[in-house]
Amino acid sequence: MAATNRAVTFLGPYKLEIQDRGYPKLADPKGKKIEHAVILKLITTNICGSDLHIYHGRFAAPSGMQLGHENTGEVVEVGSHVERIKVGDIVSVPFNVACGTCRNCKERHTDVCLNANEELGFCGAYGFNLGGWQGGQAEYMMVPWADFQLLKFPDKEQAIEKIRDLTLLSDILPTGYHGCVEARVGTGSTVYIAGAGPVGRCAAASAHLLGASCIIVGDHNKARRDLVKNAGYEVVDPSSSTPIPDQIEKILGNGSRWVDAAVDCVGLECHGYGPDGSGKNEEEAVLNTLMEVIKPAGAMGIPGVYTNLDPGAPNELNKKGFMALGFPAAWVKSPSFTAGQCPVMHYNRELMMAILWDRLPYLTGLLNTEVIPLERAVEAYQSFHDGSAKKYVIDPHNTTRLASSSGTR
Amino acid sequence: MAATNRAVTFLGPYKLEIQDRGYPKLADPKGKKIEHAVILKLITTNICGSDLHIYHGRFAAPSGMQLGHENTGEVVEVGSHVERIKVGDIVSVPFNVACGTCRNCKERHTDVCLNANEELGFCGAYGFNLGGWQGGQAEYMMVPWADFQLLKFPDKEQAIEKIRDLTLLSDILPTGYHGCVEARVGTGSTVYIAGAGPVGRCAAASAHLLGASCIIVGDHNKARRDLVKNAGYEVVDPSSSTPIPDQIEKILGNGSRWVDAAVDCVGLECHGYGPDGSGKNEEEAVLNTLMEVIKPAGAMGIPGVYTNLDPGAPNELNKKGFMALGFPAAWVKSPSFTAGQCPVMHYNRELMMAILWDRLPYLTGLLNTEVIPLERAVEAYQSFHDGSAKKYVIDPHNTTRLASSSGTR
Amino acid sequence: MAATNRAVTFLGPYKLEIQDRGYPKLADPKGKKIEHAVILKLITTNICGSDLHIYHGRFAAPSGMQLGHENTGEVVEVGSHVERIKVGDIVSVPFNVACGTCRNCKERHTDVCLNANEELGFCGAYGFNLGGWQGGQAEYMMVPWADFQLLKFPDKEQAIEKIRDLTLLSDILPTGYHGCVEARVGTGSTVYIAGAGPVGRCAAASAHLLGASCIIVGDHNKARRDLVKNAGYEVVDPSSSTPIPDQIEKILGNGSRWVDAAVDCVGLECHGYGPDGSGKNEEEAVLNTLMEVIKPAGAMGIPGVYTNLDPGAPNELNKKGFMALGFPAAWVKSPSFTAGQCPVMHYNRELMMAILWDRLPYLTGLLNTEVIPLERAVEAYQSFHDGSAKKYVIDPHNTTRLASSSGTR
Amino acid sequence: MAATNRAVTFLGPYKLEIQDRGYPKLADPKGKKIEHAVILKLITTNICGSDLHIYHGRFAAPSGMQLGHENTGEVVEVGSHVERIKVGDIVSVPFNVACGTCRNCKERHTDVCLNANEELGFCGAYGFNLGGWQGGQAEYMMVPWADFQLLKFPDKEQAIEKIRDLTLLSDILPTGYHGCVEARVGTGSTVYIAGAGPVGRCAAASAHLLGASCIIVGDHNKARRDLVKNAGYEVVDPSSSTPIPDQIEKILGNGSRWVDAAVDCVGLECHGYGPDGSGKNEEEAVLNTLMEVIKPAGAMGIPGVYTNLDPGAPNELNKKGFMALGFPAAWVKSPSFTAGQCPVMHYNRELMMAILWDRLPYLTGLLNTEVIPLERAVEAYQSFHDGSAKKYVIDPHNTTRLASSSGTR
Ligand SMILES: [Zn+2]
Ligand SMILES: [Zn+2]
Ligand SMILES: [Zn+2]
Ligand SMILES: [Zn+2]
Ligand SMILES: [Zn+2]
Ligand SMILES: [Zn+2]
Ligand SMILES: [Zn+2]
Ligand SMILES: [Zn+2]
Repeated sequence: MAATNRAVTFLGPYKLEIQDRGYPKLADPKGKKIEHAVILKLITTNICGSDLHIYHGRFAAPSGMQLGHENTGEVVEVGSHVERIKVGDIVSVPFNVACGTCRNCKERHTDVCLNANEELGFCGAYGFNLGGWQGGQAEYMMVPWADFQLLKFPDKEQAIEKIRDLTLLSDILPTGYHGCVEARVGTGSTVYIAGAGPVGRCAAASAHLLGASCIIVGDHNKARRDLVKNAGYEVVDPSSSTPIPDQIEKILGNGSRWVDAAVDCVGLECHGYGPDGSGKNEEEAVLNTLMEVIKPAGAMGIPGVYTNLDPGAPNELNKKGFMALGFPAAWVKSPSFTAGQCPVMHYNRELMMAILWDRLPYLTGLLNTEVIPLERAVEAYQSFHDGSAKKYVIDPHNTTRLASSSGTR
Repeated sequence: MAATNRAVTFLGPYKLEIQDRGYPKLADPKGKKIEHAVILKLITTNICGSDLHIYHGRFAAPSGMQLGHENTGEVVEVGSHVERIKVGDIVSVPFNVACGTCRNCKERHTDVCLNANEELGFCGAYGFNLGGWQGGQAEYMMVPWADFQLLKFPDKEQAIEKIRDLTLLSDILPTGYHGCVEARVGTGSTVYIAGAGPVGRCAAASAHLLGASCIIVGDHNKARRDLVKNAGYEVVDPSSSTPIPDQIEKILGNGSRWVDAAVDCVGLECHGYGPDGSGKNEEEAVLNTLMEVIKPAGAMGIPGVYTNLDPGAPNELNKKGFMALGFPAAWVKSPSFTAGQCPVMHYNRELMMAILWDRLPYLTGLLNTEVIPLERAVEAYQSFHDGSAKKYVIDPHNTTRLASSSGTR
Repeated sequence: MAATNRAVTFLGPYKLEIQDRGYPKLADPKGKKIEHAVILKLITTNICGSDLHIYHGRFAAPSGMQLGHENTGEVVEVGSHVERIKVGDIVSVPFNVACGTCRNCKERHTDVCLNANEELGFCGAYGFNLGGWQGGQAEYMMVPWADFQLLKFPDKEQAIEKIRDLTLLSDILPTGYHGCVEARVGTGSTVYIAGAGPVGRCAAASAHLLGASCIIVGDHNKARRDLVKNAGYEVVDPSSSTPIPDQIEKILGNGSRWVDAAVDCVGLECHGYGPDGSGKNEEEAVLNTLMEVIKPAGAMGIPGVYTNLDPGAPNELNKKGFMALGFPAAWVKSPSFTAGQCPVMHYNRELMMAILWDRLPYLTGLLNTEVIPLERAVEAYQSFHDGSAKKYVIDPHNTTRLASSSGTR
Repeated sequence: MAATNRAVTFLGPYKLEIQDRGYPKLADPKGKKIEHAVILKLITTNICGSDLHIYHGRFAAPSGMQLGHENTGEVVEVGSHVERIKVGDIVSVPFNVACGTCRNCKERHTDVCLNANEELGFCGAYGFNLGGWQGGQAEYMMVPWADFQLLKFPDKEQAIEKIRDLTLLSDILPTGYHGCVEARVGTGSTVYIAGAGPVGRCAAASAHLLGASCIIVGDHNKARRDLVKNAGYEVVDPSSSTPIPDQIEKILGNGSRWVDAAVDCVGLECHGYGPDGSGKNEEEAVLNTLMEVIKPAGAMGIPGVYTNLDPGAPNELNKKGFMALGFPAAWVKSPSFTAGQCPVMHYNRELMMAILWDRLPYLTGLLNTEVIPLERAVEAYQSFHDGSAKKYVIDPHNTTRLASSSGTR
């Protein structure tokens, strides 16, 4: 057993440190022994846009919390109840914590497991203020209900070889895919994706995998738009003085201003809408745009995060937990909205198979991954906050031999 | 051909008259001859809560418009292109106007037909300001695209015998059912239905037909709640000082404050929420309640009407076309919302079959239909506005022999 | 701990005995300790048509096997890994054995769990030759993977009160329901159900619950047909000289000879087809009838059991594991077939909710349950084999106080 | 109006001629005027494996029938009831004939339209003995119910440019796709496709488009297998002495002998199974293989044609309309089967969009299309019968400028 466990530790908004938090125990957040758990030695653990919500203080978290919900690792210790998972297995950890035996888990809604967050009553996740499970931006982490939750890769060598894509299975690839599924993206769909961050880029890749025809991604960040464009998709700029529907019409042709499906990959920290809006956070901008561009009988997926527990909400209405939504005009279009976190287990095995058989050749380029050592994690948070078009992946043990020690730009 | 066609005519908010509007022509709203149309002699034509939105001036309509979108009749004239429908057929007319050949119609979204409302570009209906199609609260009416749209009853005598139930197929039974389907009501579901008006009562009957377990209907109107209670369902009172979730918890037992499915059968004219709220219109009250009581991973159907074109919106935000919705707190529950009008053709044949084989024995009692002659229509609008627990059905020719000439209660 | 465990024991075709098989252990079929298991004291354990296949030697089983896969009981002992299930819980046991962590279980296909039958590689069940799990027609039984598998009833008193219906949740009600779901029975469907045995009668009740319009059940056994008729459904007699499609046409009217959905609740021991067929086993009769009466674009559910391991197959083709099916004529109708065992966990909670809220008032009468003591089990097998219209339910401890000691009729 | 209409005319098994059959009229097969029809000038009209069934006398057809159900053309005349389609439109014609107003058409089952085949009562098609509609391997053809049925391409020039792919929309691309959809192919699925003819190759492309992982195609024809292999998919050879499950196991690795999904793109003329089977027609070989390789809870799509009206059925059982199927062994795997013709309109718009946005770059190479003039049609039938790996596309007016007059090999 290792003596130390250095981990990205949240000390308050904009305050992160790499601290030794101690080697994890097979115990639940209250300290009770749990024999259905395993210990992982992290291979890769990614920094996510959701981590930035915590970093910015927009999603409250306790000081001392270890961050990191996008984890891939090697099993180094198993509890006595674990039957299927073995020491040495290389596994992807869905970011949701899920028990496997509650009603919601049985019905495949592992995003709202009823046994993983005692305080809220549902919805657990690692490295969030959702149930007290410590994150994996660390050397080691504990994963409960291992037999149910862990996705085992068939071959270690192959896993390391495809790690840039496989590391996305813990959250953002399933999340982008889920957004598309909820928006009913399928063969031939025209799709608008709000946000060209890592989740938005995964949503674009997912729309492609799902057979979409015209895939349009909107972002005010040019470097991120360029990644999307280079992968062969269309882009719009919400900060332009040309309204988004006009930009979409120009792309689609034939006078169409509507898309079949729309996905919100931005959430509550939306900014950069309108020519004067770049610096301003307008919580409702994405959802109101989606309702405007969706076709009659169309559907919207909303994996972008919203919360009423947002100390930094930009206006009075938002602070009270409300959003000013243009729902009345949308109603007559018979739209459908699906919100919330992705139940990763619903999709990760299928997406792994697609990756292993090389069905997403566009994924690596779109994501623009940079693998870094744990030491560079805090710097990477800042770079990501500053609008970097990279997806940062921490390799705490340099297992992949890909970690670069040089600067993040 | 009849010389006259007396019809319920809208002259402005709270101003209706029975006027002779002239026998209808086989012509579209712009006067162009359409040979795919038929003329119906109305058997029954119901007054709907949506008609009240027009009556109240909350859904703008031109003076001179004939009301009535819930129509059942006998075919008395057919255009030369009509192949399937014959003179003498007894038919139910879906309230949506739908062409049968546009993309949306082919995909069964007849609620948003692209050829039935030139002004808006989609969504046509009779007796609304949606495409200019005249309503059927009249002696005769014209129905376009007859082969595609009309649902023929297999037997005239049987149709008249079951007319109290069959007359609901043109709108409110499919609409209540659609709300339940969108809310994913199925075997064993617990359901909250907002509103015990005719649509809400049809939603309760639909939930029953769909196999729901605990069916809870909320309304501040006691007479309507009593209809629901007598049919064997549960009720809550939104005007009580006990919050709705507490009332629901008491019904469900086991500490549950959540329902599996929730349906909005109220819409923009919501009032009667909270102990002091009975007289006040609070546009968001129903939707915010639904988001509060829905379980994690639950779904909501929203057939209740909303519109941004509401001259009587109760506050500044609403007047601008926005609603203050508690979406941020709901997001973490991974909810699903589906809004809009019901595509009646998706459900009416199936529901007709269920009625003809007596599978909704509870429907007649729940609806509490009163059949009236055309002369009493204006009085019935006022009675319905006043909160009557009746569903008013106009029989302009006394075909059913059920029309009562005595006063409404 | 009890010293004895009297159980219905299979000694060979038509040879059953009540033997003391010893109190069960928390151990898998190979004798390995399993701490995820519990011991149940049986409350009710039903005799099933599938048991008759074993009784008849048509589904091979080892001598000494304890029968019984339809089990409801009280938890009297829990393994150390069990977290959710407690001693004293009243639970329904799905007849499939399922681990909860294999791919199929996670995808809700608990009927083909990959960890419950080592020999075959998938598909475990109690009291069958499917994985070696002992049945529950006994005083006590062991149930593995208890947290995942067991359906807990909310209240013991209520459970005993509704036990005649709740005891059906372990197999035949979900199985009949599954057949209907696979046949896409929904609101207004016309349905043909082959077989008026207990599963067929549960399928009729399920079709009713699912909103079907015309429900037609075929059986050559008049007493079983009468149960169906008295519940308000239609019946046809396959042994009549009038072909089944002609009998159906007479019921449906309007010249229709097709149904929307068809369900096979008979399986391989089909007999009684055609006027001369009553004594003869014709393995293909049901499936070929279903393909004949199904409408174009219709669907068939096939929960009726077939197996290639049938020592008593009626002809040479069948003995080789083939059936002579009229598939070529059916092909042009674009039919859909779904076969196999019911994944009980997909449906049992929902059906329990429907029972607890009294949404299947017709179920008790249709099933015609007789509760008997364990002593009468062997006699009941013979009576059921002889064509009794009862559903026999064994109450080994007379917990329900319903067990009648008098002779079966 | 053209004076002549040269067409591929069926005169009996293996007897085809190009005859002038006269310019088509706006009339139904009985000669009744139909104003909802249009006349097309053919741009492309493909030769299909189904045409070979007719050519071989395995699907009976009247002498004098014009062949051709895979038609793309320019509208040159419209009936007076046609509203949406205009002279000059470039359109794809779904091979099914469908009215748009019967129950099945409204429910999107245009493959079993109730008004397009008076003799059978359902299921119409051009150039088949299914309703008497003349085929389009000709200069001109008549298409009824044009507003409902025709898929308009947005731009003529673009259509001609992508004609090799777009010409597949009338049948085989939707048919292969439908087979995959019915087999529930989705992201990450492993798929076995029986047959590397044009439909099988379209199924492989469809599986790719649908996100499948490992795509395996079986055919004894090496040239066809090579097309599949070159496109990056896996192949097996049914004529090998190694059983297909063993070949599949070798491809999938990890000891798996099962696929998630299986598609029959062969049908009744199956031959080439087993090392000694290459010359022999074994009607059941494909279906029995599919049942063997499908995983528990897997699904099979069966677009391959079967019929009980087959004068050339290979054995006595087949001649009576039965097939000896290994259903009993498959039953315990809980499989699902969906058979029949593809409802082209369910898929063609979506697939057109995918083609227009270049989402199937692999399609052209897989199909290996050769465009030929009408004069070479009879020769192409023979070449296709001989096992050519080409897809023959007739361009009767050399609109595409692609027609090669040189020999077919
Ligand atoms: Zn993340
Ligand atoms: Zn859970
Ligand atoms: Zn209405
Ligand atoms: Zn339309
Ligand atoms: Zn059973
Ligand atoms: Zn399992
Ligand atoms: Zn074809
Ligand atoms: Zn049709």
